[in-house]
Amino acid sequence: MSRDAVESLLVEKKHKDLSYKRVLSSMCTYPHEIAAYAHNMFLESNLGDSGLFPGTKEMETELIRMIGALLGRENVYGYLSTGGTESNIQAIRAIRNRRKRAGLREMNIIVPETAHFSFDKIADILCVDVKKATLDDALRVDVNSVEELIDANTICVVGIAGTTEFGQIDPIKELSAITQENDLFLHVDAAFGGFVIPFLAEKDRYQFDFTLDGVSCVSVDPHKMGMSTIPTGCILFRENSYLDELEVSTPYLTTHGQSSLTGTRSGASTAATFAVFKYLGQEGLRAIVTECMRLTRLLVQGAKAKGIRPEIEPVMNVVTLSIDEVDRAAVALKAKGWEVSTTRKPKALRLVIMPHVTEETVKLFLEDLVDVI
Amino acid sequence: MSRDAVESLLVEKKHKDLSYKRVLSSMCTYPHEIAAYAHNMFLESNLGDSGLFPGTKEMETELIRMIGALLGRENVYGYLSTGGTESNIQAIRAIRNRRKRAGLREMNIIVPETAHFSFDKIADILCVDVKKATLDDALRVDVNSVEELIDANTICVVGIAGTTEFGQIDPIKELSAITQENDLFLHVDAAFGGFVIPFLAEKDRYQFDFTLDGVSCVSVDPHKMGMSTIPTGCILFRENSYLDELEVSTPYLTTHGQSSLTGTRSGASTAATFAVFKYLGQEGLRAIVTECMRLTRLLVQGAKAKGIRPEIEPVMNVVTLSIDEVDRAAVALKAKGWEVSTTRKPKALRLVIMPHVTEETVKLFLEDLVDVI
Repeated sequence: MSRDAVESLLVEKKHKDLSYKRVLSSMCTYPHEIAAYAHNMFLESNLGDSGLFPGTKEMETELIRMIGALLGRENVYGYLSTGGTESNIQAIRAIRNRRKRAGLREMNIIVPETAHFSFDKIADILCVDVKKATLDDALRVDVNSVEELIDANTICVVGIAGTTEFGQIDPIKELSAITQENDLFLHVDAAFGGFVIPFLAEKDRYQFDFTLDGVSCVSVDPHKMGMSTIPTGCILFRENSYLDELEVSTPYLTTHGQSSLTGTRSGASTAATFAVFKYLGQEGLRAIVTECMRLTRLLVQGAKAKGIRPEIEPVMNVVTLSIDEVDRAAVALKAKGWEVSTTRKPKALRLVIMPHVTEETVKLFLEDLVDVI
Repeated sequence: MSRDAVESLLVEKKHKDLSYKRVLSSMCTYPHEIAAYAHNMFLESNLGDSGLFPGTKEMETELIRMIGALLGRENVYGYLSTGGTESNIQAIRAIRNRRKRAGLREMNIIVPETAHFSFDKIADILCVDVKKATLDDALRVDVNSVEELIDANTICVVGIAGTTEFGQIDPIKELSAITQENDLFLHVDAAFGGFVIPFLAEKDRYQFDFTLDGVSCVSVDPHKMGMSTIPTGCILFRENSYLDELEVSTPYLTTHGQSSLTGTRSGASTAATFAVFKYLGQEGLRAIVTECMRLTRLLVQGAKAKGIRPEIEPVMNVVTLSIDEVDRAAVALKAKGWEVSTTRKPKALRLVIMPHVTEETVKLFLEDLVDVI
C-alpha cells in the first residue's frame, strides 16, 4: 500500500475510536503532551535489555525514588511495569515464592470484595486461593471480616487505595496493624489512588502508603492519574529481597537477571513518565487532582440539586449515583454520546472525573442525566 | 522544571542510550518509520477497554487474520500481547487450565534445552514443571529425547522456530506428529522466526506453522523482525476455545470478558503493527529478511575467510562463531564499541543481523573481530 493510502486508512480507523471527551467510564486519559514527546523520543528503547539503554535505566531508577518519596519512602525497590495487573501479579508472586520456599503448599490471599477483577486472574495464574472480605457501610473493607478470614495458609492481605468502582480507600492503617500482628504481607493496590490521595486536601485522613510500617508493597499506575502513556504501571517493594523472589537469569542479554514479568519492556513509557514528573512536579500533579476534585464536587452538587444522591460522598474523583433503572439510564446516556459505567453492589451509575473532563462537560452531562431519568 | 529544561534532560539521557547501529546482540531494532507514525497517532488507545476504541479493535482483528494467513491459517484466534513472554505464559496457561479442569494436578511441559529463559519464568509463575529435551548435532531438539520425556502428567510440548541463541529451527513437523499421537498441546515459539522463516528462500524445508495439524498455538513478535514498536507480541490459537480458558469477566468496562494477561493494553503498538503490515506487505517484509540474510552470509563468509567457523550454517539471521576465549573477545569487541553476546552450550560468539545492520557495519565488524582474536 502507498504511504498515502496507509495514512488514510489510519485516519479512518482513528475516526471510529472515541475521543475521551465524553468518556466518563475510563481510568485512562490523554497522556500529557510532554509524555507523548518523550515517548516518541525513546520509542526504540528496551528496558528488558537495559545495558543497551543506560540513559533510560537512569530515568527508571530516579522514578522509583521519586514515586517512592511521594508514597512515603524514597528507599524502595521496584520497576516500571505494564500496569496494575502485572504489578498485582508480581506482588502476590513475590510473597507466594517466599512462602513456597519455606515449605507452604496451599496458599490464600485476602482481598476486599471491591478488589479489581485482576485478582481473579491472579488467583488463576498463580494457583493461590482468593478469599473476599466484606465491606462496611462506606464500602471500605471490613477489618473484622479480614481478621476472621486469616488462617494458617494466608500469605497476603490486599488493601485498595482507590477502589475501581467507588473510588473508596480501605482502612490501610488498620490492615497494617493486623498484618504486622499476623506476620503477613500487605499489598496496597493504589493503581488509581496513588497519584490522587497524596494531593487531596484531606490526605492526612487516609494513610495508605509506606509511612505505615506494615505496608510491604504498593502498586500505582502512571498511565492512569499520572498522565503518562500506556503501558506504565509501577510496583514498589519495601524490601529489595522481594525482587530476588521474581528474578530469573538472563543469558544473552546485557544484564544477568530480570525481575519483570515481561522480557522486552517499553523504555518509551518510562521516559514519558519521567518527563511528566519532571515537568509537572508534585505541584503540577496536585493542580490536576485539585481540578478533578473540584469538578467531582460540582457534579455531585448538581446531581443532589436534581434529587440524585451519591452512593458515598466522593473520596476521590469517582462519582457513583444512586438512580433507578441504572442499566436503562446507562443505555440512554450512551445514545446521547456519553460513555458511563455501572457498579455491581450496590448498583449505581459510575462516573470517573479524569483530567480530560471539563466544567462544560459536567454541565452538559447533568442536563442529559436529568433528561434520561 | 521548565519545558526547555526537561527537553535538555531527555536529550542528555538519550545520549547515554546506545544507538542500535553497532548493536549485534539484540533481537530488537528501530521500528519502521510508519510504525512510529501510527504509534504516535493512537498513543492514548487502550485495547483493554476496546469498546471505546472500535477502530483500533478492527486493526487488531484484521492483524490476527493477516498474521494467521502468513503462518498457514487465516482462521485463528488470539490477540496482540506485550511480547514473547506474555504469549508463552498464555499458551501454557490455556492448556494448563484445560487440563486442570479435567482433574490433572501435577503437570509438566517439555521444552528444548535451547528454549528462551522465559520458560523458567513461566514454570515458576504457573506452577508447572519444565523438562528439558536434549539437542541433536545441529542444535535442534532431539525428537527422541522429547518422546522419552513424555509421561502421564505432560500437557504440552514446545518447539522453537528460531532459537534465541542459534537461530535454529526445531523439527516442528516431527513434533507435530508426536503431539498428535500423544494428544498433547504443541506450542511453537516463533517470537523471532515467525516473521523470518516465511520469507526464506528455503522456507519449504522448515514447516513450522498451522499448516501442520498438530500445531495448537504459535507466538510471534511484531516488535522483533516485524519492525513494529515495543511492546508488541502476538499469540494465535488454532481453536477459539483456548481463549475461553484465559478469560476473566470484566465489570465496569465496555467489554464483558478479557483474555489478555494485562488489563490496560497498548492500542498504539497495534496500530503500529497494522501500519507496517499494510505499508510493507509480505513483499516488503520479504525484502527486509532477504537483505538481513545477504548480510548474514556475508558475515559468515568473511569470518570463514579469516579461519573462523560458524557453530552452525546460519538458518536465519543469527550467526554464532566458534572462537577461543570468547568472553575475552566479547569484552575486547565491546571496548571497540560493539555490542555482542555469547551462547552457552556450545560457547560461541553470537551476532544477530537485524535490519539496522548494514554492509558497512559487517565489514567494520569483521576487521575489529580479526583484531581482537
